[in-house]
Amino acid sequence: MRPWLPLLCVACASQVDSPTPPPPPPLPAPSPPIAPWARVHQPAVDRILAVKEGQAAWERLRELTDGIGHRLSGSPALERAVDWAAASLGAEGMVVTLQPVTVPHWVRGEARARILAPTEQPLHLLALGGSVATPPAGLRAEVVVVDSFEALAAKATLVKGKIVLFDVPMTHDVHGPGYGAAVAFRGKGPEEASKLGAVAALVRSVTERSLRSPHTGATRFKDAPPIPAAAVSTEDAALIHRLSDKGPVQVELHLSPRQLPDAKSHNVIADLVGSELPGEIVLLGAHLDSWDVGQGAHDDGAGCVMVVEAQATLRRLKLPLRRTVRVVLYTNEENGLGGGKAYRQAYGDQPHFAALEADTGGFRPIGFSVESEDPKRVAFIADLARLLQPIGATQVQAGHSGADISTFADTKAILMGLDMEPWSYFDYHHSEADTLDKVDPAALQADVAAVAAMAYLLANVDAP
Amino acid sequence: MRPWLPLLCVACASQVDSPTPPPPPPLPAPSPPIAPWARVHQPAVDRILAVKEGQAAWERLRELTDGIGHRLSGSPALERAVDWAAASLGAEGMVVTLQPVTVPHWVRGEARARILAPTEQPLHLLALGGSVATPPAGLRAEVVVVDSFEALAAKATLVKGKIVLFDVPMTHDVHGPGYGAAVAFRGKGPEEASKLGAVAALVRSVTERSLRSPHTGATRFKDAPPIPAAAVSTEDAALIHRLSDKGPVQVELHLSPRQLPDAKSHNVIADLVGSELPGEIVLLGAHLDSWDVGQGAHDDGAGCVMVVEAQATLRRLKLPLRRTVRVVLYTNEENGLGGGKAYRQAYGDQPHFAALEADTGGFRPIGFSVESEDPKRVAFIADLARLLQPIGATQVQAGHSGADISTFADTKAILMGLDMEPWSYFDYHHSEADTLDKVDPAALQADVAAVAAMAYLLANVDAP
Repeated sequence: MRPWLPLLCVACASQVDSPTPPPPPPLPAPSPPIAPWARVHQPAVDRILAVKEGQAAWERLRELTDGIGHRLSGSPALERAVDWAAASLGAEGMVVTLQPVTVPHWVRGEARARILAPTEQPLHLLALGGSVATPPAGLRAEVVVVDSFEALAAKATLVKGKIVLFDVPMTHDVHGPGYGAAVAFRGKGPEEASKLGAVAALVRSVTERSLRSPHTGATRFKDAPPIPAAAVSTEDAALIHRLSDKGPVQVELHLSPRQLPDAKSHNVIADLVGSELPGEIVLLGAHLDSWDVGQGAHDDGAGCVMVVEAQATLRRLKLPLRRTVRVVLYTNEENGLGGGKAYRQAYGDQPHFAALEADTGGFRPIGFSVESEDPKRVAFIADLARLLQPIGATQVQAGHSGADISTFADTKAILMGLDMEPWSYFDYHHSEADTLDKVDPAALQADVAAVAAMAYLLANVDAP
Repeated sequence: MRPWLPLLCVACASQVDSPTPPPPPPLPAPSPPIAPWARVHQPAVDRILAVKEGQAAWERLRELTDGIGHRLSGSPALERAVDWAAASLGAEGMVVTLQPVTVPHWVRGEARARILAPTEQPLHLLALGGSVATPPAGLRAEVVVVDSFEALAAKATLVKGKIVLFDVPMTHDVHGPGYGAAVAFRGKGPEEASKLGAVAALVRSVTERSLRSPHTGATRFKDAPPIPAAAVSTEDAALIHRLSDKGPVQVELHLSPRQLPDAKSHNVIADLVGSELPGEIVLLGAHLDSWDVGQGAHDDGAGCVMVVEAQATLRRLKLPLRRTVRVVLYTNEENGLGGGKAYRQAYGDQPHFAALEADTGGFRPIGFSVESEDPKRVAFIADLARLLQPIGATQVQAGHSGADISTFADTKAILMGLDMEPWSYFDYHHSEADTLDKVDPAALQADVAAVAAMAYLLANVDAP
């Protein structure tokens, strides 16, 4: 998924990691009137938005999640998903291109751990992508608990030969879930621990709500030797932290991930060719790979079926499109961004008018984030989004777009992300709980409507 | 825990098994005035209720959960908990009796399962207490999905040699969580499947919210040969059900639980002796054993520390007590009720004026259920509970009391249970997620106040 972004929500910090009720989102402010130049598109947009009825997208998602399951880079399942996506797009009459991409092939192996002292208790954890294995017999070491990089620096002399636990709870504020702040410890924490001689690193899972459910994700070792690294559930992080407050905590850790030779994968690309400016691309992106837990339903199966179904909707409605609406289902977003980089390399010379990434789950759409510091560009998209009032997806703000399309950040392309009600995404994200039952068919279909309508507008409006 | 009971809450059925926000509980109706005979106790009750400040109970619970962990009958951990409880009560100046109880000794072993066809996907499950093992190599069979006992009867001829999945979601209505209705399939489902020749049984975990978290519990085989039986997470039940709607589903199941020879355990009993009617008992009960997952924090560590701390509060305040206030920490509530039965056998001849069981977690107290069909008895307790207005624990109704004290159901004893805000208890119940971080110290301390105040009243009022 893409790093979290400012979204409207109300602060509610729960003392315990329980599925506590978040407050309802505030009502959106009344919209300004729709500009006359945009209003001419309302009839076509209204036809598109009618696709919100039905559950075609959910049925597609069922094929992907129940029929194939999770699909990490390098796995046979991912290539089955590639074939499925190509066949699905072909069945909608699209011309499909499979772009070969070389991807890393990391396999999880086994993860077992327990607290040995002061009292034996099992730990619930998932290795982080990029982790190396412990010795076959496991490793045993004392835990040094820190709640910030500053705290790690302060304990620098204590870390050698130890396991570092980064126990930094994810919180949220009025701008949305604090994913970016918390995930920094997953991404960089193990490397920082390695620099100080730690034998392994544990991080608190990046979620606000947990039922002893660890959340995986990528970590990286650029400037230090890789060490075994895993995410423990929030409960386990809290347990180790509480015990550590009273005295030394010994942990035994067994991880057996392996980095295999790189594998072949593919971006799946399908064009609905524009009539007037066929060389100008409006890209609808999502990523086909997922972590190797759960079913990759919200992350990012939902995005994939959303953009496929949005493009198919435009084709079925036979609406005129000046520019080409292109679906790109990227490979290897989660642990390498290989698909995004390969697409940029191969297609970067084509003029991309806009790129919209769907990688925030399949919850109700509320609007769009525009990756731009130019208020005029944001206002331009806001003008378009006002036409989506019938489905409530009108909130537009400057923010992050999406990891895959961020490879076009140095171009003139308008980069956007679809924003959704953010309440529960991180409960499931990168965990065994990211399953089809969590996706509401009506919400997902409303996403299709939002993406299809915005794609139509981007394909037809004059450049700002 | 005790079977769920009518509690005030508002219906909200979530389509997906996500931690969705429940509605806030309705405000309690204004109470009638306090009867003059009860009002004389208000000054003493107010002194007791002041114990709601502080977090002594949570600190005790930390000792039990972090220091010992879960504690199933037959485990060394349970006997460590017995010793800890005896020492804790002794340190409060109580005379402690350890009553020997013979308990079953079931050990969980390993649980692994996966869907083999139509697509391979892992299943998340916990063996049910009472389950037998699969053959060492596991078993493979097609799954027959049913959503009621009637549906099982309708498919009776299809079950032989198959695995039966009971996929019955737990819901709730205005009376509270529908635990009783859903748990019937865990308790009796495997036996009914066995009667029809099933080789194994799976049940949907009894919870409304899940993050791929299976919930264990007891099942029984009285009238049919035992078969391997496990609870799958709600997500896995839904997955099998969806796949089964499209065609045959093959599952591979490995379970290795064992029933060992019965073990020795103990009820922990401590008396705060009454001055005037020392032979009349006001029993405060909870159970020390837990399932062998999580930390047994809400179920029923919370109840244990609550009654210990309530009794200690009465002693510290040196309030006059006419009757004896007795704490009983029962062993083996979860899989046998051995402690409850043994206590009845040894102490059933003593006059028990009342028994109050705390086995609904450590959430905010809202009142009491009285196990009686006599409206006068319920009204009598309601009159007493009105004195608990300062902590809001005034709702009194007829309902279930508690499993351990239900062994006194044929006596004159007033049997009661402490009722709490019921929103999230079953999210954690019998699962790895029942951990200390889920217990709010302030809520738990308010429970102590409620139990202590009610115990004081029961020890001092004239019989109704």
